[in-house]
Amino acid sequence: MTPHYQALVAIFQKAARIEHATTFLQWDHMVMMPMAGNEARSAALAELKELHHGLLTDPKIAELLDLAKNDDIGPQIRIGLKEMERSYSQAVCLPADLVKAQALAGAKCEHQWRSQRRENDWAGFAENFKEVVNLSRKEAEKRYAAKGEDFSCPYDALLDLYCTGDSSKFIATIFSRLKKELPGLVEEILAQQEMLPTVSDHFPIREQKKLCQKAMAQLGFDFNAGRLDVSAHPFSTGCRGDQRITTRFNETDFLSALFATAHETGHAAYEAGLPAALCGLPQGQARNLCLHESQSLFFEKQILLSRPFFSFFATYIHEFLPASKGLSAKELWRLATRVEPSYIRVEADEATYPLHVILRFEIEKDLINGDIEVDDIPELWELKMGSYLGLSCAGDHRNGCLQDMHWTDGSFGYFPSYTIGALNSAQLFAAFQKESANWQEDFARGSIDSVRNWLEDKIWSIGSTMESQEIIEKATGEKTNPDIFLTHLRNRYLKGLY
Amino acid sequence: MTPHYQALVAIFQKAARIEHATTFLQWDHMVMMPMAGNEARSAALAELKELHHGLLTDPKIAELLDLAKNDDIGPQIRIGLKEMERSYSQAVCLPADLVKAQALAGAKCEHQWRSQRRENDWAGFAENFKEVVNLSRKEAEKRYAAKGEDFSCPYDALLDLYCTGDSSKFIATIFSRLKKELPGLVEEILAQQEMLPTVSDHFPIREQKKLCQKAMAQLGFDFNAGRLDVSAHPFSTGCRGDQRITTRFNETDFLSALFATAHETGHAAYEAGLPAALCGLPQGQARNLCLHESQSLFFEKQILLSRPFFSFFATYIHEFLPASKGLSAKELWRLATRVEPSYIRVEADEATYPLHVILRFEIEKDLINGDIEVDDIPELWELKMGSYLGLSCAGDHRNGCLQDMHWTDGSFGYFPSYTIGALNSAQLFAAFQKESANWQEDFARGSIDSVRNWLEDKIWSIGSTMESQEIIEKATGEKTNPDIFLTHLRNRYLKGLY
Repeated sequence: MTPHYQALVAIFQKAARIEHATTFLQWDHMVMMPMAGNEARSAALAELKELHHGLLTDPKIAELLDLAKNDDIGPQIRIGLKEMERSYSQAVCLPADLVKAQALAGAKCEHQWRSQRRENDWAGFAENFKEVVNLSRKEAEKRYAAKGEDFSCPYDALLDLYCTGDSSKFIATIFSRLKKELPGLVEEILAQQEMLPTVSDHFPIREQKKLCQKAMAQLGFDFNAGRLDVSAHPFSTGCRGDQRITTRFNETDFLSALFATAHETGHAAYEAGLPAALCGLPQGQARNLCLHESQSLFFEKQILLSRPFFSFFATYIHEFLPASKGLSAKELWRLATRVEPSYIRVEADEATYPLHVILRFEIEKDLINGDIEVDDIPELWELKMGSYLGLSCAGDHRNGCLQDMHWTDGSFGYFPSYTIGALNSAQLFAAFQKESANWQEDFARGSIDSVRNWLEDKIWSIGSTMESQEIIEKATGEKTNPDIFLTHLRNRYLKGLY
Repeated sequence: MTPHYQALVAIFQKAARIEHATTFLQWDHMVMMPMAGNEARSAALAELKELHHGLLTDPKIAELLDLAKNDDIGPQIRIGLKEMERSYSQAVCLPADLVKAQALAGAKCEHQWRSQRRENDWAGFAENFKEVVNLSRKEAEKRYAAKGEDFSCPYDALLDLYCTGDSSKFIATIFSRLKKELPGLVEEILAQQEMLPTVSDHFPIREQKKLCQKAMAQLGFDFNAGRLDVSAHPFSTGCRGDQRITTRFNETDFLSALFATAHETGHAAYEAGLPAALCGLPQGQARNLCLHESQSLFFEKQILLSRPFFSFFATYIHEFLPASKGLSAKELWRLATRVEPSYIRVEADEATYPLHVILRFEIEKDLINGDIEVDDIPELWELKMGSYLGLSCAGDHRNGCLQDMHWTDGSFGYFPSYTIGALNSAQLFAAFQKESANWQEDFARGSIDSVRNWLEDKIWSIGSTMESQEIIEKATGEKTNPDIFLTHLRNRYLKGLY
């Protein structure tokens, strides 16, 4: 390590310590904080964000990067410098007052959204949201102006914050293939889907929580280095040694909390498996959300929902929730793989989920690029819901354009990662299957060590030392390919395999 | 507001936003954080502490204070400047290397104390503790040198951090009166104390928690602006709009959690009642720990433990914990007012508690002033325990000089606030009684609005805009007077009143 690189490491590690505070204050905000705490919390978070931004935009970083590049360094440090430069250029292109204004407007909009959603108050929400959109457009323009050569429109500059390395052109091509195939495939699945037994029992939340904790343990979660809590919307956050995941419970539907928990356990596994030696540095972080989501969906859809693992785990479902015994393991699996076009993205099944995402991708892209306005959203939402999923929200925005938290604080460009992640997840699992002859037997006795080790090797331990599509290609032999996901859907939902 | 004062306000409010982060990260550390999170959390907290210290020792503050004093300002701003100057001079008088050495020695001593206490290892503890004392003596000397005119000995400079405004001379006079009266009074109480019924039932923690929440609500706690959780030791923290209190549960003793909850509810009430307009400024903070403890003890000992309120609340005890029905409201009150000399300060009753504090005050004062050494402590402890409480530790330091955490990280000068707080609490209640003819009827139907309003007016809303003894004198007609506390004890424990 040269002194210049060493000095850069010190700066980024200091920023990571400030980010630690933000991370856990935000977790607390979502999980623990009482209503009236919002004002002080928002002010503190804005202060920390400004401080963090100040550290990451220190002109010293640019100087040190220039000097360090000319030092006698090895390839690992060169990769580190590339990611440090990416972090710096992403941070430096925004003026501090814009960053602060976004934090305040986002916190206000998100906080009020919680009650506005309940009250179906689109008009009230739109008032705050217009300011959020206005500021995000400014952000997109600034980022676009700074790195225009990499992007084809302002929206792409926001997309790159979440789907780093995957261009909107690349994503649009994939989505157009899915848009063409999925509605027909969903119809085909629905046509052959058998009537399902109904469960209308009451499943106590305390027992459901124990079942979720059992699932986490079985999926390799370390409770000495993390915890499970409840929040309005399941999420995962934390730091090395302290992974916080959340779920939400529904007394009549235990599958919802269970799969959400498995999903967040996958996110936590990726974070916990990142290279320890690079902790706090840009090159040590998770690569992007398309890979992050590939890990959460891997745990949810490829492990827990796989026929062999699910059969194994159904024993615990029956044990922890005796009221579920009315359904056999096979019937529970059929229940968990039910396909049904619906209003709520987070409750959508594997086959229809990408259509929810494509709808949002199209709206947010046009919104950020200035081709539509906030007031246009409800009508567009209605139109696309009808066209992609055959449903009408009929003015019920709670189940329409008010359902998601992402836009409330300006996280535009986030949604596509859910579907690219789903594709990556199916593709990674297909590659793993080719390398592991015994996976079905292992899964059938609840052992997932082999696949955890494989993921650690191929994904987790890489951090950000390679580009997203390089990681996918090295692990699976090709870049993200929607056909593998479509094959996975046909195997599971038409042929009843896996 | 002049521009100079305005600039000072901005600096202190910024520091308060950083302190917000520290506050809730420490709460999380004590209440939520998994084991493996410690390393990252400690690093983040150290970073924030350094940042906070840097803000509060900025030489710009001294310049602005000088300029602001010469501006055309009113009495309120003059008071604000006085408290800002107090904050600045307290922060700036210690060299950074001493602060760092203290943090390290304190963390080491406190960490090892946990096992040394368990193992009754005084010799091992003394080795680390000597370094803590050595550094605290240096701290006291530095603070004494910087503000010597206010203090009569180095110890006073540490005392002033907790009992701000109350000198060791003032406290020693009060304590000498208590020392003279209390042992005899305790004997008198013991002689006439009837045999008590025993409760050895099992009280489910979930129901105990509900009972504690009911008590909090009855005592005016706003659950939209705070929460109750569990930690190893009860504490209270938070900020405006978000008061976090904790308690701990014992399945065979529900009174312990209940009174600890009432105690912390009093701390939270003080914090919640501080002047909103001065939030984040030194003059808007709670005055000192002698007043803070007076509020917690007011809620615990003067409200909840008062005969009329306790009789009212016993209905809920019986309702929430049916196993308690074996004891009448009157018997429960007798159980809660049992006096018994014991080894452990935190478990001591109202009458013997001050003797535990006086013992510690005398030792720590001589220790910091260099009149005794660490090696003298066990013998002095034994001597004073015998003389004040009639007990002998007989070499069991776990229940003797190894029992408290306060000294392990150098918090010398903290203990006296427990007893000055108890005296203030009795004195405030006596003053309130004189002004409120109906207090007994009000309490008997669970209504404490009148006393909350009185406390808000006399204590909470004052913040730090007056000195501690000025506040007490204005509220009660005289400075802290031990006779009022002694009368309270005689009324409750000899005459069975209140």
